[in-house]
Amino acid sequence: MTKNIKRFLIGRPLKNEALAEERYGVMWGLPILSSDAISSVAYASEEILMVLVPVIAAAAYTQLAYISAAIIGLLVLLTLSYRQTIESYPNGGGAYVVAKENLGVLAGVTAGAALSVDYILTVAVSISSASDAITSAFPAIYEYRVLICIGFLILIMIGNLRGIGESSKIFSIPAYAFMIAILSMIVVGVHRYFTGITIPQPAFEQTSPITSWMMVILILRAFSNGCAALTGVEAVSNAVPNFKEPSTKYAKRTLALLSLLVFTLFGGTSLLANLYPVVHQPGRTVLSQIAIEIFGQGPMFYYIQITTMIILAMAANTAFTGFPLLISVMAKEGYVPRQLSMRGDRLSYSNGIIVLTAVSALLIVLFNADVSKLIGLYAIGVFISFTLSQSGMLVKWTRSKEKGWKNKAFVNGFGAVVTAIVVVIIAIFKFHEGAWIVVLLVPLMIFAMMKVKKHYIAVSRQLRMKPEELETIDIERDVYRNRVIVPIESINKSSIRALRFARTISDNVVAFSVAIDEESAQKLQERYKLLKTEIPLIVKYSPYRKVVEPLLKFIESAEYDYQKGDMITVILPQFSVKSWWHNFLHNQTRVFVERELLKHKHIVVSVMPLQLKRDDMILNNPKYDR
Amino acid sequence: MTKNIKRFLIGRPLKNEALAEERYGVMWGLPILSSDAISSVAYASEEILMVLVPVIAAAAYTQLAYISAAIIGLLVLLTLSYRQTIESYPNGGGAYVVAKENLGVLAGVTAGAALSVDYILTVAVSISSASDAITSAFPAIYEYRVLICIGFLILIMIGNLRGIGESSKIFSIPAYAFMIAILSMIVVGVHRYFTGITIPQPAFEQTSPITSWMMVILILRAFSNGCAALTGVEAVSNAVPNFKEPSTKYAKRTLALLSLLVFTLFGGTSLLANLYPVVHQPGRTVLSQIAIEIFGQGPMFYYIQITTMIILAMAANTAFTGFPLLISVMAKEGYVPRQLSMRGDRLSYSNGIIVLTAVSALLIVLFNADVSKLIGLYAIGVFISFTLSQSGMLVKWTRSKEKGWKNKAFVNGFGAVVTAIVVVIIAIFKFHEGAWIVVLLVPLMIFAMMKVKKHYIAVSRQLRMKPEELETIDIERDVYRNRVIVPIESINKSSIRALRFARTISDNVVAFSVAIDEESAQKLQERYKLLKTEIPLIVKYSPYRKVVEPLLKFIESAEYDYQKGDMITVILPQFSVKSWWHNFLHNQTRVFVERELLKHKHIVVSVMPLQLKRDDMILNNPKYDR
Repeated sequence: MTKNIKRFLIGRPLKNEALAEERYGVMWGLPILSSDAISSVAYASEEILMVLVPVIAAAAYTQLAYISAAIIGLLVLLTLSYRQTIESYPNGGGAYVVAKENLGVLAGVTAGAALSVDYILTVAVSISSASDAITSAFPAIYEYRVLICIGFLILIMIGNLRGIGESSKIFSIPAYAFMIAILSMIVVGVHRYFTGITIPQPAFEQTSPITSWMMVILILRAFSNGCAALTGVEAVSNAVPNFKEPSTKYAKRTLALLSLLVFTLFGGTSLLANLYPVVHQPGRTVLSQIAIEIFGQGPMFYYIQITTMIILAMAANTAFTGFPLLISVMAKEGYVPRQLSMRGDRLSYSNGIIVLTAVSALLIVLFNADVSKLIGLYAIGVFISFTLSQSGMLVKWTRSKEKGWKNKAFVNGFGAVVTAIVVVIIAIFKFHEGAWIVVLLVPLMIFAMMKVKKHYIAVSRQLRMKPEELETIDIERDVYRNRVIVPIESINKSSIRALRFARTISDNVVAFSVAIDEESAQKLQERYKLLKTEIPLIVKYSPYRKVVEPLLKFIESAEYDYQKGDMITVILPQFSVKSWWHNFLHNQTRVFVERELLKHKHIVVSVMPLQLKRDDMILNNPKYDR
Repeated sequence: MTKNIKRFLIGRPLKNEALAEERYGVMWGLPILSSDAISSVAYASEEILMVLVPVIAAAAYTQLAYISAAIIGLLVLLTLSYRQTIESYPNGGGAYVVAKENLGVLAGVTAGAALSVDYILTVAVSISSASDAITSAFPAIYEYRVLICIGFLILIMIGNLRGIGESSKIFSIPAYAFMIAILSMIVVGVHRYFTGITIPQPAFEQTSPITSWMMVILILRAFSNGCAALTGVEAVSNAVPNFKEPSTKYAKRTLALLSLLVFTLFGGTSLLANLYPVVHQPGRTVLSQIAIEIFGQGPMFYYIQITTMIILAMAANTAFTGFPLLISVMAKEGYVPRQLSMRGDRLSYSNGIIVLTAVSALLIVLFNADVSKLIGLYAIGVFISFTLSQSGMLVKWTRSKEKGWKNKAFVNGFGAVVTAIVVVIIAIFKFHEGAWIVVLLVPLMIFAMMKVKKHYIAVSRQLRMKPEELETIDIERDVYRNRVIVPIESINKSSIRALRFARTISDNVVAFSVAIDEESAQKLQERYKLLKTEIPLIVKYSPYRKVVEPLLKFIESAEYDYQKGDMITVILPQFSVKSWWHNFLHNQTRVFVERELLKHKHIVVSVMPLQLKRDDMILNNPKYDR
């Protein structure tokens, strides 16, 4: 039944060959890859205003315009830079790959660590903001926002475990619906403004005048918050191999469209915030207040809120595409545990998806789904990776010196310098708001990743054999003396099956049992005699039926005559149960005994499955009833 | 290192023979078994007052006296009843045993379920109250109370994993210190009252007059809260076998002393609350306010608060002695998962201890360490078990008709009736305060326990063999055809070791590998040829290195010629790692593959350990460096 539920939720396993069919063009690729970048219209302007309004009141709206212009300038620069990355890295030019190839392992791992932190934050911020969007429309559910977030997360996780192709198709229609929603809000909003309706002006609290230095700091803090609008621009260049052939062409076209969208939507909403000045209220996003002023609290308002919610959920989805891909690349190279490189049975990287879900759920709970608190940690990671990626490209051009390299090097070099400055700005001006966590975490992750890599190197060196060594080995001759011990608790079908199997793998078999007292030992011996087997039965005493210690003691005793080089196989039965909850009732001892025995290099543990019938089949069958 | 920390925290493993030495007499037994009952002075009067004061103001203190008298009457009755239980059940007369033996399985399981719920609540209530005691003395840490509770819990868990004997000795001195503290407070308090000091009278809010029906309901609600004072009285009769010989004598003496203590301390503090009327304040327990009025905020006050905290921690400790014992008895009989019957390596029931810690920690977090909220769930479980235990004793006497049975039957019968009435009172009057959770949970637990028992019966029927069946079996002749498959990823020391081992257990061996493409397949084949072994190498393609599906497909294919009755052994290597964190880097695939393969009844999985050297030993050794 568990299996059926799993199949229902995540679909049938796909054949490997199906991979090619899962790729997308511009039409499906744009919604899945752009959502991170375009969805930030839901919070970026608001988070800029939240820094400015309390200090400079109405003047905040003018500054918002300047800051938005600066961020759009950054966007243009990044677009130009990443066009070049797509061209040079048709197999996916994630910051990790580009930095590692051109700047070395440490830079690559740094980019990888920074980017993974940001993927997690993308999920946490987007989901929290999605819940804000929906609770702005339905204030009654505001207090359940953490629960709503976890619900979203689980839905997105399931969607992703189903595989990339389907998720892009499922989500693309609402993505386009969102674009239409915001565009029409911008058009109607601007039109209504110029047709001269009266716009209510918020009552600001009296603010004290500030020095120009304080003003600079304030603007930089606001700018740092706004930079969250640019996370996700790198998504296209990471995902080049997910595009249909010719993938470079499709990817570049998608990137261009993406930038145009961010420009229009983010620029447009900043403009609207200027025309319709509103102030932040808990449980009512700035965007939702503007929507009410433009459309009233009618169907259009709800349409905007719902599509906003969906696009934010899709932004989280972008990270669900990117993070497992990044981690699996790093896992293949041995910087993170290898099992994260395995594909699940719908061609998606299930392990990475589950890790991402768990960590971002933890963040949402810890930060109580508060976008303003989470935003303090956000964007620094992605800007570190921007810088490393651009620097890598710069080095690449100066090394290759191919046709036109100077122009290309200038674009990437300029990009590297600007994004590096942004990193420093964010690190300093959001340090107290949470950036310190990231500043601390990234080096720790780098340290751990290098340590993991070292371990894998040590293991492979230990195991490897040179061809000349291989030639000296004679597997047929250098065999071990193989001996078998069958621990039995009583004489039943399971133990007899184990004894019969033991006979097939060795002539040197003993049955071994622990008894709590002499009486039960004698009873066991008597029943065992009925089998009339040559296999000797050894019984040891242990008042609490401990198996491991008496067994190890027996192996070491003179009685057993263990000789160096002998391999001892211990056969343990494992019950295959019919209900999931039966697992709590069996095999716990087996798992414990197996783990303890495997600490000894000369002991092999053979686990022998035994399939149990359903309880009611036994209990209602007179054959089993005595 | 992990092992060393474990050893440091929980001590060396004890030999089984050490069990006898761990037993205690009256002097050590009293503190460990009485703490649950006597520690309730810290909250019982307070929780009675919290019901009364808001409704009837100053009159509450008079009612407190009556209610306390009723509870002390119940105490006397229970003491007389349990004396008889101790005499009749020298091997431990827990309610589970007594009810099961005399009233049948269902009554026994009901008592077991009810008692386990109450053990968990004893821990949650006592620990929360311990934290109240200490935060009353140091109000600055009040907001960290959940954290403080979790800290206490962990300390107690560690203490108990070290074994019963030591815990009783560690904790007995502060237990006596607490008795002295409360006794001196009672003596000094009464003396000062009669020497005529002025006692500040609290200003009560105006209350509206109530009908006499409402008064009855009010008093019954307050009485239900006060019944928490009696939980723990049964501890002695459960623990008879933990006493030194003659254990019945020591147990009865301990029970008598325990009752005397509860009488004096609970009666005395109720008297003090009458003489020094104080009202509940958040973060300041009633007991702490009385202590300040009597001794001022000096050393004696801190002495009282600290010993109160310790006795409450010890009360939780009582549950840590009782719960795992109860669960292990039920586990041995198959009503709860069998692994809960295993003793840890310091003769304590580690699994039960860990379950108890986890569940009570959860309760503390959910109820925010608030005693008044937790008390709503408390006491009902223990009174259910009182009733069942007394009824069981009544049935026992009427059946045995031994000398003097009529008197004995009267005592237990009267006890059964009175405690049954108390169960009904608590269930009704605390239903809304949380008793409904227990009323719902206990039947669910009974259902689950019966279901578990049924499953164990089904399994044992399925496995058992009659002596005449055993005689027909010839283990030497009825052997399986044994075949071996060695999955290999590359040709290295690990795979060669597995191939050599395979040779020792069968002549029918194949090596099996999955390759992602033809090139890597060819490379593998070439290296394999160097081994010049007769064992064939089968290579299958799987773009994502999945092992399980290709392997199963191969077994089913005509190529492998599987015949019914063949046993196939699959050999999987397991790395024994040198650091705990290396476990995250290895063996995950092995565990997954093992689990999948064991679903097939004809596949045995042999796990072959391979010990890895320390990373630095490899990395700094030029031998491993090419």
